[in-house]
Amino acid sequence: MILLLLMMSEQTAEKQVVTPWVATSDSAFDYDKLVRDFGSTKIDQELLDRIEAVTHKPVHHFMRRGIFFSHRDMNSILSAYEKGTPFYLYTGRGPSAGMHMGHLIPFMFTKYLQDLFDVPLVVQLTDDEKFLWKKLTVEETRKLTIENARDIIACGFNPEKTFIFSDLDYMGTMYPNVLRIQKMVTDTTVRGIFGFTDSDCIGKHSFPAIQAAPSFPTTFPHMFGDRKKIRCLIPCAIDQDPYFRMTRDVAPRLGFHKPALIHSSFFPALQGAQSKMSSSDESSSIFLTDTPKQIAKKINKYAFSGGRDTVEEHRELGGNCDVDVSFQYLAFFLEDDARLAEIREEYSSGRMLTGELKKILIGVLQDLIKKHQEARAQVTDDVVRHFMTPRPMEHILFPKKETSSK
Amino acid sequence: MILLLLMMSEQTAEKQVVTPWVATSDSAFDYDKLVRDFGSTKIDQELLDRIEAVTHKPVHHFMRRGIFFSHRDMNSILSAYEKGTPFYLYTGRGPSAGMHMGHLIPFMFTKYLQDLFDVPLVVQLTDDEKFLWKKLTVEETRKLTIENARDIIACGFNPEKTFIFSDLDYMGTMYPNVLRIQKMVTDTTVRGIFGFTDSDCIGKHSFPAIQAAPSFPTTFPHMFGDRKKIRCLIPCAIDQDPYFRMTRDVAPRLGFHKPALIHSSFFPALQGAQSKMSSSDESSSIFLTDTPKQIAKKINKYAFSGGRDTVEEHRELGGNCDVDVSFQYLAFFLEDDARLAEIREEYSSGRMLTGELKKILIGVLQDLIKKHQEARAQVTDDVVRHFMTPRPMEHILFPKKETSSK
Repeated sequence: MILLLLMMSEQTAEKQVVTPWVATSDSAFDYDKLVRDFGSTKIDQELLDRIEAVTHKPVHHFMRRGIFFSHRDMNSILSAYEKGTPFYLYTGRGPSAGMHMGHLIPFMFTKYLQDLFDVPLVVQLTDDEKFLWKKLTVEETRKLTIENARDIIACGFNPEKTFIFSDLDYMGTMYPNVLRIQKMVTDTTVRGIFGFTDSDCIGKHSFPAIQAAPSFPTTFPHMFGDRKKIRCLIPCAIDQDPYFRMTRDVAPRLGFHKPALIHSSFFPALQGAQSKMSSSDESSSIFLTDTPKQIAKKINKYAFSGGRDTVEEHRELGGNCDVDVSFQYLAFFLEDDARLAEIREEYSSGRMLTGELKKILIGVLQDLIKKHQEARAQVTDDVVRHFMTPRPMEHILFPKKETSSK
Repeated sequence: MILLLLMMSEQTAEKQVVTPWVATSDSAFDYDKLVRDFGSTKIDQELLDRIEAVTHKPVHHFMRRGIFFSHRDMNSILSAYEKGTPFYLYTGRGPSAGMHMGHLIPFMFTKYLQDLFDVPLVVQLTDDEKFLWKKLTVEETRKLTIENARDIIACGFNPEKTFIFSDLDYMGTMYPNVLRIQKMVTDTTVRGIFGFTDSDCIGKHSFPAIQAAPSFPTTFPHMFGDRKKIRCLIPCAIDQDPYFRMTRDVAPRLGFHKPALIHSSFFPALQGAQSKMSSSDESSSIFLTDTPKQIAKKINKYAFSGGRDTVEEHRELGGNCDVDVSFQYLAFFLEDDARLAEIREEYSSGRMLTGELKKILIGVLQDLIKKHQEARAQVTDDVVRHFMTPRPMEHILFPKKETSSK
């Protein structure tokens, strides 16, 4: 009874909904609450220290600044790395028209992880999911898949160790593992975890098994042969965690390791941190196709400001970095800790005005998007085909032929 | 209110359950009731006459004797055939250990239809279904698939016009259509039609879309290209009808014709017509691997007799062909109408004793199984591979290149 009351009071205290399809809140997202609700673990200084000790490199500023803030089983991955036991990375996205800056975050971080650990990576493009959830034809989603693959490849992944796949294309190979997972998961479970109902189509009810399958190495026979005991680390936004809670429950029953996870917070909309950037809301997003002029205009026009109403007031009281979207974006994209601290100090004290802060951000974003667009222009059809072709990688990934660990 | 009472009285009048997984009854199956409940159409003399008029051949004894007794849209198929418009046949089975005589019925009839109309045939082996429903591994179901394919091929299908496929192997090609169907079918629908519940796995909930997909020609691009308007005729046992009621509902919304159906009754168990022959009950079945001796022994020992308790009584009152399993089996496998009528007359009058009737049946079955086993021995691995390889058939099926009817 006491427990029930506590839960109820907690629910009324804040209105925050986070699922793979919806992320809304009446104030800034409470990530501590998400960690509690989802049962993951906060990334603490001890973990950061261990990563640095194991890799002999400073951790990514996404981790230093709490942008990647939560995890499951990262210590198992680090122990595997210390022992020289191979593992792989798995991330993905539901292809959509209009990729925006927020979509880059998991891929930028995954690229960092791939370089840091020198490990293989699989990237799932859930075109089947998009087809089921959106008003799109199969043909339309296929086109989006290829366009999104170009943007992902432009992030600089290792062409020898990266396999990008479309569910529609790769289902033939994935199907046995998808089926094994589908057999282990009841409809009660997906109703509980994902909130599916009677009126949802049967494709939605069974889809979670498809997002789960790449967590298991035998889904990629061309990469891992029949090795069942290779660990998997999944960098993703926290809203994808429900899929992998389900996957982790199934894994040991199928003879696999539970996948490890490292979770990012949401990339805020231009309007502020109570919602995430969304392709479907044009005015909330900086797109990867935006021109320098469009970037400047959107930041100046829409980016929610933590500044004061008048210059005089601002000079006197200072701006509020904790709600200022421009400052938050800089925390994502300005790597230099000292420079970021200086900007915070200047803005909080009132010496720096909102216009000046926005100008710095605009420069950073224009530079980043320009580089992305240049890299994307290099991604030819042949390059896309290369990344998306299931190709033998065992000889690269496991140079000394191991006996199967099945 | 009156309607409700009628329905209730009907439900209590007889206990008959028929789903793709269960077929039981407390007395002989009431097929008229199934036709009413399922909303199909009884095959009548008019349809038989039309088939003979259109094909210029006598109809199969399975139809003459009411073994194939129900249909949907057979007239559309006959009209297509009259006009020279192509259509194809689709049948299948869930692979299992120990195929028995009852399993041959739909394939014998399908072989007749393929010869009669000279049309392509696709045979789906739902190894995924068996994996989901039974205590089997993926590897075990794969083996059953190949063994069952051998028995199916032994029925004599046209190697140029027949494609046999395993869902596990062919999902890569089927997936877009499976997904299109999954998007159109709510969980309410599969709960209503198939009785799935919360505690069934999500694989079961979405499986019906997989059995539906081969009803649509674009599931077989190597055979039909992108032609959407080719009709499909499905010969199957009546218990499979629920899948195709669902399919027919979805078809027009996806731009396809509704598949036509022709339904068989169940092949009775040795113990009698209130249950169907089942692989899982050894004593109910004559297996395709049985020796002549085993056949004789099982018929003599288990086949339910419509004869009387003593020879004297039998001579006086005669046997009852309507419940006699041996006589019913002869109705399936003895093609000669005059001979069958003669046997009925002899047995009913009491001139023929049960032992004599059984002896005739044993001869017929021994001969049929021997021929099957000989044909099966000719089915090499290469032959299986040939039938199960997706191969270009367009040039055979459509010798004059048509414009796509999409």
